[in-house]
Amino acid sequence: MPKIVDHEERRNHIAKAVTQIIIRNGFDRVTMREIAAEAGCVHGTLTRYFPDKRSLLVAAFLQVFNESHARTLDCTEGVRGLEALRRMSQALLPFDDVGSENSRVVLSFWDRAAQDPELYDIHHDNIERRRALIRTLLLQAREDGEVDPDFDIEQGVDWVSVHNAGWQMMAVLLPESTNDEKLRASIDKMIAELRCAD
Amino acid sequence: MPKIVDHEERRNHIAKAVTQIIIRNGFDRVTMREIAAEAGCVHGTLTRYFPDKRSLLVAAFLQVFNESHARTLDCTEGVRGLEALRRMSQALLPFDDVGSENSRVVLSFWDRAAQDPELYDIHHDNIERRRALIRTLLLQAREDGEVDPDFDIEQGVDWVSVHNAGWQMMAVLLPESTNDEKLRASIDKMIAELRCAD
Repeated sequence: MPKIVDHEERRNHIAKAVTQIIIRNGFDRVTMREIAAEAGCVHGTLTRYFPDKRSLLVAAFLQVFNESHARTLDCTEGVRGLEALRRMSQALLPFDDVGSENSRVVLSFWDRAAQDPELYDIHHDNIERRRALIRTLLLQAREDGEVDPDFDIEQGVDWVSVHNAGWQMMAVLLPESTNDEKLRASIDKMIAELRCAD
Repeated sequence: MPKIVDHEERRNHIAKAVTQIIIRNGFDRVTMREIAAEAGCVHGTLTRYFPDKRSLLVAAFLQVFNESHARTLDCTEGVRGLEALRRMSQALLPFDDVGSENSRVVLSFWDRAAQDPELYDIHHDNIERRRALIRTLLLQAREDGEVDPDFDIEQGVDWVSVHNAGWQMMAVLLPESTNDEKLRASIDKMIAELRCAD
């Protein structure tokens, strides 16, 4: 009897293996051989799903972005405005060890996206999708009177994006200054400043 | 008569060639052959100064960091506190095309530093040196009564670091949202918020 294989699950499993290698060894060490070993499959299985290294990187990008987007949607469900923005920031900022591992992947993706038009577009779509969510939450905050009526929504979107991106870098390259307490204080400060912004 | 060569100048010239290639093609394309072509020297000359690609990357790191540090010292000379911090931010943020080219190098360096302990240390020294300057300027601002007497200096240092790092990423990966006007507005906002921070 032929084995029943869930192809979608297998693809996801392999894409996750790529991410694990990036966390452990960095992008340069991502080879087809390493991926096969990490995913626990033979080279032939690997290439049936992903013909080359690039297609694997695309899959890893999409998986990380989609998971992160799903997480932000989950954590903002049922809340709106600044409270939703606070929860979203908590989900995206590099809290604890898992967070700083993710930041390593994020930094690798940034550099890769800067060099490769297809990965740039995938990254760009993701960042725009996230910014659309931030925009929605800031508009709710304005509707609900949490921020001033003449609050500059686009500047607010930039501010939240910059805050999130900056901490990803800090988590990787200045880890001793990136602990949970500092991150919580920084989110509090950001929310407080949105609240009183002109 | 032997040609008189300024070795220090030659080393700097070659290190600059590395940076130019990173701007144009990304880190992966940095090969000894490309560098020799960019610097306009033969392979033998190149290896006399830099035995391998790693030593070249170290030189490029140091050169970019030292130049950027010299620039921040220049532009803050004779001013103190928040005004000096504003000028420093103007010097570091990715204004105009030159700024966004520099941001590409910065993003490549981040990923490389995350993967290589020696480059991590060089990057870390540089970021600490910059944070020491930010700290000095914030202490001056507190002395001069520009910020509240109980202003949290370390949180301020983080805030300015995060703001600077976040915009580097934006300049490369969301260039349509990173124009000079937005950057100026963001610096104004940051300074204004330091001024009224608790």
